[in-house]
Amino acid sequence: MPELRKDPVTNRWVIIATERGQRPHDFIRKEEEPKQKVPICQLCPGNEAMTPDEIAVYREAGTSPNSTGWWCRVVPNKFPALGSVGDLGRAGIGMYDMMNGVGAHEVIIETPNHGEGMALMKEKQLEEVLWIYRDRFQDLKRDPRIRYILIFKNHGRAAGASLEHPHSQLIATPVLPKRVMEELEGSRQYYGFKERCIYCDIIRQERADVQRVVVENTHFIAFQVYASRFPFETWILPKRHDSSYSDVNKSQVMDLAQVLKEVLLRMHHALKDPPFNYVLHTAPLNNDCRNHYHWHMEIIPRLTNPAGFEWGTGMYINPMAPEAAAQSLREIEI
Amino acid sequence: MPELRKDPVTNRWVIIATERGQRPHDFIRKEEEPKQKVPICQLCPGNEAMTPDEIAVYREAGTSPNSTGWWCRVVPNKFPALGSVGDLGRAGIGMYDMMNGVGAHEVIIETPNHGEGMALMKEKQLEEVLWIYRDRFQDLKRDPRIRYILIFKNHGRAAGASLEHPHSQLIATPVLPKRVMEELEGSRQYYGFKERCIYCDIIRQERADVQRVVVENTHFIAFQVYASRFPFETWILPKRHDSSYSDVNKSQVMDLAQVLKEVLLRMHHALKDPPFNYVLHTAPLNNDCRNHYHWHMEIIPRLTNPAGFEWGTGMYINPMAPEAAAQSLREIEI
Repeated sequence: MPELRKDPVTNRWVIIATERGQRPHDFIRKEEEPKQKVPICQLCPGNEAMTPDEIAVYREAGTSPNSTGWWCRVVPNKFPALGSVGDLGRAGIGMYDMMNGVGAHEVIIETPNHGEGMALMKEKQLEEVLWIYRDRFQDLKRDPRIRYILIFKNHGRAAGASLEHPHSQLIATPVLPKRVMEELEGSRQYYGFKERCIYCDIIRQERADVQRVVVENTHFIAFQVYASRFPFETWILPKRHDSSYSDVNKSQVMDLAQVLKEVLLRMHHALKDPPFNYVLHTAPLNNDCRNHYHWHMEIIPRLTNPAGFEWGTGMYINPMAPEAAAQSLREIEI
Repeated sequence: MPELRKDPVTNRWVIIATERGQRPHDFIRKEEEPKQKVPICQLCPGNEAMTPDEIAVYREAGTSPNSTGWWCRVVPNKFPALGSVGDLGRAGIGMYDMMNGVGAHEVIIETPNHGEGMALMKEKQLEEVLWIYRDRFQDLKRDPRIRYILIFKNHGRAAGASLEHPHSQLIATPVLPKRVMEELEGSRQYYGFKERCIYCDIIRQERADVQRVVVENTHFIAFQVYASRFPFETWILPKRHDSSYSDVNKSQVMDLAQVLKEVLLRMHHALKDPPFNYVLHTAPLNNDCRNHYHWHMEIIPRLTNPAGFEWGTGMYINPMAPEAAAQSLREIEI
């Protein structure tokens, strides 16, 4: 019989329906994504003039801005979802509310090497990506118009990536996004009730239960989610309670790079380079959620297609038990 | 500059970002969906033995159950997301909550004619579909385990339809889905504040504003949504305040068939038979939301691909202003 499971933070119910008997290999894509036929990649070294001027960069000493010699580079999105200039201009239109699309939309070029997808990237390079994420937080949080900074990655066309060159994105918003509000509210209520962080409790239970854990080191744990919306939905949490990614330290960055790399590499082999999204969930700016919120990463391989039921209910049907997904990720040879 | 708009019911912010200058025709799919090469369609007349026994049916007098002679037919889903037998078995697993996947999952075969997609269906046939929806509500609401009945349609492979033959689905759940709770809560708060139904107010404002309206008749109005998540997201609302679809009457069914048909036909021509989902949003069972909730249909053509940003924030980036979408739907020749 299918099973209904509830996400303890957001109270979202998920249907784990394994009746069709799908096995991990059923989620492997049948066809390779066709390689993009782009004559010139605008994110590759040598083509720096094709992007807007760099906002942040790690580059060799003595090299000039917007030229070669970089190993991580951040530029504004050419077609930003939110612009950086102007005021909020909050207004009502009858019963509706609107404001100007003020914020930031940046592209984080993770490597000069076009073919070096994140799963295959060296840990050292991944650490650099994690550091430049943090730099962007530190810089943008000084803008009083911004309430939330979201860093995410779309890998593969089916996951929404329009460019093949490895990159992440940053969107800074002048409003608190709905999903973030739900996590804050859920964890705040739990804290009020238990005087403990709900995510810390989840870590304790997952470590004791073991069956959903994929990999763990000193500072981080990666596991399949109990009430997972999607096959192979994976969360990575810092074991030390911290609400904001921007407080990450050197040994944490090293450990996060190791765990993230291993998770992506295991997915790469188990699911044949699947399209995926990951999202960094962290505390909003100017919001005291120190005690009850716990930053983390959510990784979602795009293997199923949410349809009418999901849009209509906010519930999800997941054809793969997270326990089986964890086992297959642990067992795959890397 | 992009614009942020807030959905008044759920408080979800949406970014309307038209900077890339996309026009309605940019959302037309480049390739036709390949016709499925299925030797035998299990939903076609003559193949009734390939489905589980029918639960409800409109068929010619004198014909036998599970044989030809029907024009609308409801059967259990062969691979149900929720099963109909058993009790809820609510249980805790440490800090997590689960229950048995009890409910119903049905397939509503809308027509015997395999090639008669809903946009091209006769209004009379569409009325029959709407009536059989209502019959299923009336039947299932007697089951005390069920809290919510969701009727939805996935059209086209990209919208999650695994069978080509025109059909809708019904899923009855033993829990209140998250999205439904949000709508109930948002409309309840508004009613507490204003003593008016928020959806009735939306109808009044859309009728006065005119620019987002697609089509209207005596009992129904269809418009593009002010804070639409997706290009061409369309809502159809009954003008008379009613919380539950199951109270629909004959003249309403006739008018709904007309409006739904016209919306789908306009999309069919403007967007070349787009994949789409629609979802019937109606009151939960045993929940007194008579005054503040207002049933409606939400139609979402699947033209864009929600990615990391959407999963991470619950916000949406919509590259098409609903005002422009409404205009192009109004102007298309049908």
